[in-house]
Amino acid sequence: MFTVREARPEDSEHIVRMIKELAEYEKLAHQVIQTAEGHTVVGYALYFFSYVGWKGRTVYLEDLYVMEELRGKGIGSALLRKVAEIALQNKCSLLNFVVLNTNFPSIDFYQAKGAVDLTKSEGWHLFRLGQEQLEKLAGGKGQNAPASPSP
Amino acid sequence: MFTVREARPEDSEHIVRMIKELAEYEKLAHQVIQTAEGHTVVGYALYFFSYVGWKGRTVYLEDLYVMEELRGKGIGSALLRKVAEIALQNKCSLLNFVVLNTNFPSIDFYQAKGAVDLTKSEGWHLFRLGQEQLEKLAGGKGQNAPASPSP
Repeated sequence: MFTVREARPEDSEHIVRMIKELAEYEKLAHQVIQTAEGHTVVGYALYFFSYVGWKGRTVYLEDLYVMEELRGKGIGSALLRKVAEIALQNKCSLLNFVVLNTNFPSIDFYQAKGAVDLTKSEGWHLFRLGQEQLEKLAGGKGQNAPASPSP
Repeated sequence: MFTVREARPEDSEHIVRMIKELAEYEKLAHQVIQTAEGHTVVGYALYFFSYVGWKGRTVYLEDLYVMEELRGKGIGSALLRKVAEIALQNKCSLLNFVVLNTNFPSIDFYQAKGAVDLTKSEGWHLFRLGQEQLEKLAGGKGQNAPASPSP
C-alpha cells in the first residue's frame, strides 16, 4: 500500500537520497542495484510548468523515480497519474520529458502510457550549454580576460 | 542597430506573430520565407527556470527566434547572451533546449556557442504525452466510461 501526496519540507532528506539514486541509475541505465531498506518515502516526481509557444501551457517532468525494490507495484503509474491530473487541472495539454535511449524499462513504461518518442518521430534533439559556455557567452570569466602584467 | 530588453505586455501582438512564424519555420525547417516588413520587435527568447535533480537550477530555453530577414546580424547571439547572463545571475549552471535535427542553421549556431547535442552524445530522447493520453492517465474522459444503457 502506498499514497501519493505533495512533497513536504521534512521529505527533503529522502528526496535528496533518491535524486542521488536516480543519478546513479541513469549512469548504469538498467543495471542498478539498490540497497535501501525500510524507507517510508520511496519515490518522487519532480515537475514544473512551462510554456510551449503555440501550444500553450505545458508540464515538464524532470524526474520520475521509484526505488528499485518497489518497482512493478504501480507506484510509478500512480505518480504519473497524479502528474497528469495536475497537468489537466492547470490547463496543460502536454507533458514533456527526456529518457535515455538505453533505459528500456522506462521507455516501455512510458510508451505503455501512450507516450511518443519525439526524437524518433520528429527529430528533436536535446542540446545543452554548460556553465563554462554560459560564462563565455555572458562575457564573464574566462573570456576577454586582460593578460596579467608581465613581472 | 537593435536592443535586447524584457518583453512588455504591449509586445504581445508581436510575440504571438513570431510564435506563429516559428511554428511555420519548424514545419519547414530551413526553407521558410518570411514576408514581414517594418516590424520593430523582430525576435524573442522564451525561457523558464527549472530544476534538474542533482544539478540544481537550470534554464530551459523554449524558443529563440529572429525574423528571417534580420538573421546574420548578431540579434540571435545577443538574445542568447542575455539568456546566459540571466541564467548565471540566477545561479543556473545549465541551459537546456531542443532543436530539430533538420534545422542545420540553428544547430550550427548553437554548436558555435559551445552547445553539446546530448541526444547524440548521451542518448537522451524527448518524449511527450499529449492531452488524450493525459486524460486517459488521469482517469478522465474516454477511459472507464460506463457503457450507455441499451435502449
